[in-house]
Amino acid sequence: MPFCDRLAAAVQQRGNPVLVGLDPRLENIPEPLRRGVERKDRAAAARCYAEFCRGVIDAVAPLVPAVKPQAAFFEQLGPAGMAALYEVIQFAREAGLVVILDGKRNDIGSTAEAYADAYLGEASAWQADAVTVSPYLGQDSLLPFVNVAQARHSGVFVLVKTSNPGGGMFQDVLVEGRPMYARVADVVESLAAKTAGPCGYGCVGAVVGATWPAQLAELRSAMPHTWFLVPGYGSQGGKAADVAPAFDESGLGAIVNNSRGLIFAHERKEFAQFGAAGWQRAVEAAAREMIAELRAHTAAGKLATS
Amino acid sequence: MPFCDRLAAAVQQRGNPVLVGLDPRLENIPEPLRRGVERKDRAAAARCYAEFCRGVIDAVAPLVPAVKPQAAFFEQLGPAGMAALYEVIQFAREAGLVVILDGKRNDIGSTAEAYADAYLGEASAWQADAVTVSPYLGQDSLLPFVNVAQARHSGVFVLVKTSNPGGGMFQDVLVEGRPMYARVADVVESLAAKTAGPCGYGCVGAVVGATWPAQLAELRSAMPHTWFLVPGYGSQGGKAADVAPAFDESGLGAIVNNSRGLIFAHERKEFAQFGAAGWQRAVEAAAREMIAELRAHTAAGKLATS
Repeated sequence: MPFCDRLAAAVQQRGNPVLVGLDPRLENIPEPLRRGVERKDRAAAARCYAEFCRGVIDAVAPLVPAVKPQAAFFEQLGPAGMAALYEVIQFAREAGLVVILDGKRNDIGSTAEAYADAYLGEASAWQADAVTVSPYLGQDSLLPFVNVAQARHSGVFVLVKTSNPGGGMFQDVLVEGRPMYARVADVVESLAAKTAGPCGYGCVGAVVGATWPAQLAELRSAMPHTWFLVPGYGSQGGKAADVAPAFDESGLGAIVNNSRGLIFAHERKEFAQFGAAGWQRAVEAAAREMIAELRAHTAAGKLATS
Repeated sequence: MPFCDRLAAAVQQRGNPVLVGLDPRLENIPEPLRRGVERKDRAAAARCYAEFCRGVIDAVAPLVPAVKPQAAFFEQLGPAGMAALYEVIQFAREAGLVVILDGKRNDIGSTAEAYADAYLGEASAWQADAVTVSPYLGQDSLLPFVNVAQARHSGVFVLVKTSNPGGGMFQDVLVEGRPMYARVADVVESLAAKTAGPCGYGCVGAVVGATWPAQLAELRSAMPHTWFLVPGYGSQGGKAADVAPAFDESGLGAIVNNSRGLIFAHERKEFAQFGAAGWQRAVEAAAREMIAELRAHTAAGKLATS
């Protein structure tokens, strides 16, 4: 099944669009797991990351459709970290989750093809279902990703309007009266339309931050074939009402990422009652809370009954 | 010593600005090394990549100042490929070469910091001297790289004007009458100026393709504190005369990358006389040829006598 339809099916089956960001940071990992692990021992830290992520996956797999491992934190631990990343991706796949690797990769020509071949689909070394990609190099740098994604029933999410406060520096500048991100959006939508499956969406998606509700609305309307990956929910300030414009009328079209707010829920005072040892129950409770918020304030509320 | 000055010293000591791109591709690796290695056996392919890159490094280390491993090709082989990348970086460092990892990474806030921490300097997991970075996320995504680079005497090269034919799609669009890449260049130059060392250049450089000689000249003039990493020489069509505008009057300010034209020199008919077994002599001969071309047609000719 094409990626776009697999993602739609996963969202519908779980009845929510929550994407759990796997961003392990040693200092935030629950004490029972990180006890005695020092940052300078990268092999031990990598084992700790893998154990922690497996624990998160166990807690959320029955609830949510997808996870998003952040490559940077695994790369930070060198080759041992990369072995942990591989293990985490496999574990998530086996748990029935869609896996979107957040690597923001990009390059030109055959090098872009190498990245796509590295990450996309079962035939790849890492076996992710989708990968995030940066657009600065232009459409010819995106096409190799799109071609591989289409051939392997996997997906690509292109940065369009990012959640960080300074993202506008280059993304918001006006080009012939329209912001730069809208030009990038045009290219992404045209690639998405060409690869659209039965669900109406294509294998090329867009990253659009929860911190920009007006742009989410504008882009949802301009990009009818494009899945949105929406970061910035929770600790970055995005709320359920902010991401409402990202969805189509049936509650599809967007997956909403939360990393720290879910995986480090044991640090949040609302979930302090679970204690350090009950950190997985805190993760589960935080995921249930986010699901409820999205169901209450967005069209994702229609998913549960479909 | 700050990265910018270390790079200047390396270029002056070798008397040339050649940057050897380490882009291993199984199908192009000399037959004696790849015999019996199948792509589907990623561990064997990774060992082959490491052996090949060590062989290239042995051939060029006495001649050139720096190498640029391309992360994509190692990532393509999964965790085994990453272990090979680590080995190649260490081998190049021990051979006295400046190592610029071509990863075109980027992200926001503390995730960008994780990438910087991952790759930059002796304290990092991978121990590269510099890394390439994409600018689409804005200045706040670049600052964590710059801060880590400065603290660790390492460097960052930001994509400004890339060598691919379609790079202009977003890079050349006019914003208030100036191309987008010039806006990115403004930010890069300002960061470079703030971090300038005794050599006059900063720890923040720019990637500007050899395929755009006019823009090289324009940007050299607009970016007096910025080292240029110039890809696109050789198989992408850039020639010595094309890259001449990238240099300052003393022959510093630019390093010129060639990947396939050097590392796969055994496939070029000019070097056929060395045979498959003599592939390292072909690499050496191709590097000497490129050095001679740059000395003849650019200000790098002044380096040898300085």
